[in-house]
Amino acid sequence: MIKVGVAGYGVIGQRLADGVALQKDMELVGIADVAPTLSVRALKEKGMPYDLYLVDGADKSAFDSLGIPVSGRFEDLIGKVDVMLDSAPGGIGVKNKALYEKAGVKAIFQGGEKNEIADVFFHGYANYEKGLGADYLKLTSCNTTGLIRAVDCLDRRFGVDRVAITIIRRVADPGDYHRGLTNALQMEKAPSHQAVDLMTIIPHVEATGILVHTPVTHGHIITVLAHGKNGKITKDMALDAFKEHDRIRVVRIDEGFLGNASLFRYARDLGNPRGDMYEIGLWEDSIVESGDNIMFAINIPQESVTIPETLDGARAAMKMQLDSKSATSETNKYLGMGKWK
Amino acid sequence: MIKVGVAGYGVIGQRLADGVALQKDMELVGIADVAPTLSVRALKEKGMPYDLYLVDGADKSAFDSLGIPVSGRFEDLIGKVDVMLDSAPGGIGVKNKALYEKAGVKAIFQGGEKNEIADVFFHGYANYEKGLGADYLKLTSCNTTGLIRAVDCLDRRFGVDRVAITIIRRVADPGDYHRGLTNALQMEKAPSHQAVDLMTIIPHVEATGILVHTPVTHGHIITVLAHGKNGKITKDMALDAFKEHDRIRVVRIDEGFLGNASLFRYARDLGNPRGDMYEIGLWEDSIVESGDNIMFAINIPQESVTIPETLDGARAAMKMQLDSKSATSETNKYLGMGKWK
Amino acid sequence: MIKVGVAGYGVIGQRLADGVALQKDMELVGIADVAPTLSVRALKEKGMPYDLYLVDGADKSAFDSLGIPVSGRFEDLIGKVDVMLDSAPGGIGVKNKALYEKAGVKAIFQGGEKNEIADVFFHGYANYEKGLGADYLKLTSCNTTGLIRAVDCLDRRFGVDRVAITIIRRVADPGDYHRGLTNALQMEKAPSHQAVDLMTIIPHVEATGILVHTPVTHGHIITVLAHGKNGKITKDMALDAFKEHDRIRVVRIDEGFLGNASLFRYARDLGNPRGDMYEIGLWEDSIVESGDNIMFAINIPQESVTIPETLDGARAAMKMQLDSKSATSETNKYLGMGKWK
Amino acid sequence: MIKVGVAGYGVIGQRLADGVALQKDMELVGIADVAPTLSVRALKEKGMPYDLYLVDGADKSAFDSLGIPVSGRFEDLIGKVDVMLDSAPGGIGVKNKALYEKAGVKAIFQGGEKNEIADVFFHGYANYEKGLGADYLKLTSCNTTGLIRAVDCLDRRFGVDRVAITIIRRVADPGDYHRGLTNALQMEKAPSHQAVDLMTIIPHVEATGILVHTPVTHGHIITVLAHGKNGKITKDMALDAFKEHDRIRVVRIDEGFLGNASLFRYARDLGNPRGDMYEIGLWEDSIVESGDNIMFAINIPQESVTIPETLDGARAAMKMQLDSKSATSETNKYLGMGKWK
Repeated sequence: MIKVGVAGYGVIGQRLADGVALQKDMELVGIADVAPTLSVRALKEKGMPYDLYLVDGADKSAFDSLGIPVSGRFEDLIGKVDVMLDSAPGGIGVKNKALYEKAGVKAIFQGGEKNEIADVFFHGYANYEKGLGADYLKLTSCNTTGLIRAVDCLDRRFGVDRVAITIIRRVADPGDYHRGLTNALQMEKAPSHQAVDLMTIIPHVEATGILVHTPVTHGHIITVLAHGKNGKITKDMALDAFKEHDRIRVVRIDEGFLGNASLFRYARDLGNPRGDMYEIGLWEDSIVESGDNIMFAINIPQESVTIPETLDGARAAMKMQLDSKSATSETNKYLGMGKWK
Repeated sequence: MIKVGVAGYGVIGQRLADGVALQKDMELVGIADVAPTLSVRALKEKGMPYDLYLVDGADKSAFDSLGIPVSGRFEDLIGKVDVMLDSAPGGIGVKNKALYEKAGVKAIFQGGEKNEIADVFFHGYANYEKGLGADYLKLTSCNTTGLIRAVDCLDRRFGVDRVAITIIRRVADPGDYHRGLTNALQMEKAPSHQAVDLMTIIPHVEATGILVHTPVTHGHIITVLAHGKNGKITKDMALDAFKEHDRIRVVRIDEGFLGNASLFRYARDLGNPRGDMYEIGLWEDSIVESGDNIMFAINIPQESVTIPETLDGARAAMKMQLDSKSATSETNKYLGMGKWK
Repeated sequence: MIKVGVAGYGVIGQRLADGVALQKDMELVGIADVAPTLSVRALKEKGMPYDLYLVDGADKSAFDSLGIPVSGRFEDLIGKVDVMLDSAPGGIGVKNKALYEKAGVKAIFQGGEKNEIADVFFHGYANYEKGLGADYLKLTSCNTTGLIRAVDCLDRRFGVDRVAITIIRRVADPGDYHRGLTNALQMEKAPSHQAVDLMTIIPHVEATGILVHTPVTHGHIITVLAHGKNGKITKDMALDAFKEHDRIRVVRIDEGFLGNASLFRYARDLGNPRGDMYEIGLWEDSIVESGDNIMFAINIPQESVTIPETLDGARAAMKMQLDSKSATSETNKYLGMGKWK
Repeated sequence: MIKVGVAGYGVIGQRLADGVALQKDMELVGIADVAPTLSVRALKEKGMPYDLYLVDGADKSAFDSLGIPVSGRFEDLIGKVDVMLDSAPGGIGVKNKALYEKAGVKAIFQGGEKNEIADVFFHGYANYEKGLGADYLKLTSCNTTGLIRAVDCLDRRFGVDRVAITIIRRVADPGDYHRGLTNALQMEKAPSHQAVDLMTIIPHVEATGILVHTPVTHGHIITVLAHGKNGKITKDMALDAFKEHDRIRVVRIDEGFLGNASLFRYARDLGNPRGDMYEIGLWEDSIVESGDNIMFAINIPQESVTIPETLDGARAAMKMQLDSKSATSETNKYLGMGKWK
């Protein structure tokens, strides 16, 4: 039983903790945070299903006065685990890493950190083997994680050598007030970092792309144009591959999946905690062919999409499974992925 | 054990079904709908926790081809229940009523229907006794239901004789595409129907108000100015009363409840199904005094706020409890309300 | 001096009237509408710079009671002009056409009508010559008009044989309440009609694309991936061509053009009536190469972008100039386009 | 002829410059800014209708390389004027004031500065006389300026002693990317500063209120509940007073003024530069009575609403007119206000 801790109990950290708790071959030792945020208050109101540890600089009296039980210091948590899933705010992870190194504990970082933080820039499907036994992995960001699922899916089956993407990015998470966009589409300089990251993870693909921020909170949409290395990938071929993938949910406009908000609503109606969805959505009726290219649109549930690949990362770092297929199958099984088919 | 059915498995119907299922003194016999909507597909993916009946005009073959089990016709459902909770789209309820009358079954309608549909225009706290034994009740709409909770709370304790409201209305539900508003605030002619409805339910209060639609999807905000009938209601007095109410959650900006999106996020983090919240939020730091008036702001979670009062309605119609206090206590206990205190 | 009338004084009609009024070789005889809309009230408040004619079914007394002078019936206007610019709501144009035919008057329709309404589906740059002397032209829609400007610009210079687009569509115009989208990105089935229309206008280009609606009101953004027929089109080559085009404004994020809202603000600050911009924006820092493809992003000011090409259409139909270059130069000169360089 | 300069050529500064340029008894000497922003680039593209001076810290070479002519240093501008209208970003005004004092030049500051910056906290209608001959005035903020117009209008005619407001605030200006709000309504602690400021300007009125930020860019909406000091103010009385006011435009939903976006669209259709409107909108169909209170809703065009009162301020400081009525009449005449009636 691998012992796991989660650093940073925010948007990602809460979901990592829930994800670990579902893995029958992992034990969630506890989570760490610095302040009694709404997420920590909610943990308290739920009866503290996870033990809470305080990072340096936390004001313990603030927790005490709210009756929030504290199980110890961050270092205590680190001392009890085999691997930390670090979802601290961008830039904090590098400080935490010093503690992990001191304690000889492995760690998986999220996409907000710089690549230099880790030995391997990791994706559960595309380069699992690179992460085997590594001490420090950094996950791809939410958009890149979902994008690579789809590109890797086609690449493994048919070969892909060129990709051009347009990322229609949600600008803020639900509940964010510190950032937002009102009646504007905001450009970023091209190429988008997601295209560049894709090339790092799958070096034989040449990728470029443009990112535009839009004023919505649930689910990026990415259009992908992929070129078949070995000839044309038809719509039927692509659809076939996508439908077999356990982290891709193929949907149709005619079914009622009119956009990103439909996928969020559907996940809420499913009773998924927080209305989360681990899989990316892929619209069957968006798939079109263009010369030797295949074009399609995917939905990235930004709050939860990286959870499965992060769990894959823990599996790789701890050598729980020795190949991508076995590892992702375990993660998927415990998360209940693919059961909709 | 009271047998209950739900007509219309949409935004409200799904939540009514879940609410009934939680009441230990009620049995949910089934739900009825007309098409394999996303909500019905989600029910299927969850393994059909509720039996599904089809209303007239439904195309059963569409359900069959999706493998969605059907338990019978709407009339079959009606024949098995004591009371129907009708959350069919506005205007359909009046047609359904004919079926209820024919079968001698009581029904509780939602606010989208006209007042004439029912014997009593109902609110669980403000006029429970009027609904006792009635055959047909109509609930107040979501805004009015939440508003009356707050006004009734002050009125019972201190006396209120005049109210002026400003409703900052969310224009669409999450997942709606058929209506929306983009970069605009839309006026409605004053007085708002919610102020008029308040006077129908609590006749000794004179009320008026203005409603403005805003481009958000989670949670109306209403500012309320209430005049004390028996002298000034101070902030302390009001706060005291609000904090004791099991369907009012007093929150503060300093805690992190910065707006309506914080309450939705908190409910998601609590793990509430669909991120729902039954209670209205009330900002402690919005309460201000003005002459003999007290002013404050409340948050109305429009998707779920009417569920408790609808269950109260079933209790009244079926004479399960004979007074508001007993009835609302039962509803609240089974819904887990007030346990955050 | 060509005599011109405008049918339908809405978002497009107002701008057509202003555009005609600026052409020194055209005379605006008048405009026609059916009701005292805000646009007509504004015309009145401005002192009736344009004569107003009423279409069949208009209630003249409503205009009289507001003191809005009426110059006659729609048929009277038609009787005085050489060519009508028809910007009536989609579907009305086909009814108006019967009146134009009866009077022997030419007409230019907007993109909302079906292609069958016209002899030629028209774009001022891409197929001007096809429109020469034609009785009925239909303009491309706003997105297609702007898109073709950019594609035609590259095609003429370097040759283009394949295009893939992602349209990030603004969902409503400023001031619209009857349609809107709130916190959602809405998919349309692929391929988008704009890609299909592009192929109709420039038949040697194979085009496909995906359209996503977004909750903003000013300016669609389109990402375009174009394949060079005669080899790679580099960023420098493309930039060179774009900068020479009088209806393309090359901008940079570093200058402060962060997105579509910056272009609208800039046009307002320029003092342009209504904050309109006739040219499309094209972000220099969005241009990237991918294999033999060039990718870039453009901004489509949806309210005003079709005005120049509509004026080109009148020139073609009336044979005022016999080739695209001469015609577009005249239109541009009178509209003041390209003077920013 | 009073000589006027404008410091800070942003959203407000551009409009102040235009406003001064329209006053036939004032001369706009020039404007000052620090960087070649989009607004300055637009000034250049328009042919430099106003002379530009550079504040300390500006990089002149950046202007030179763009071909933007510079007329001198900020101190040069100050040396040529009688009064500066200071619309520098909040907090910069206090630094500029030292320069004004040194040069013996009067100044009018905008609402973003602290009250301490000025001798008088000023509103052209409510306390013009206090500003007579003062060296330093600070204008009320945009919301407060518009609110006071309406309250003062009723107060002067009928007497008002208590006001409660709900401010439905637009969160960002068109073209803003550095702030925004996406799918959220954000609370501020009560009472809102606008209510407090109202009491400073009109001390015999007791005011309170709640402010909620909303994700729109054009026009705050405020609901106002006002109590008649000398008995009930009826709807007819109020309407009468509002209709006579030259800075209040009474509109109706039935005319097509459905919300704040309609007023912006109407101003654009009028051909007003930037689609600006100096007057507040007031919805006739929002006016309702409640006991001795009158309730109504107003629209505040945040970009331009303070321009007239700032010009009034220059008149007061320079003693151009000795009473509010004469001063505001002059300002209004040159701005063309009230001509819509």
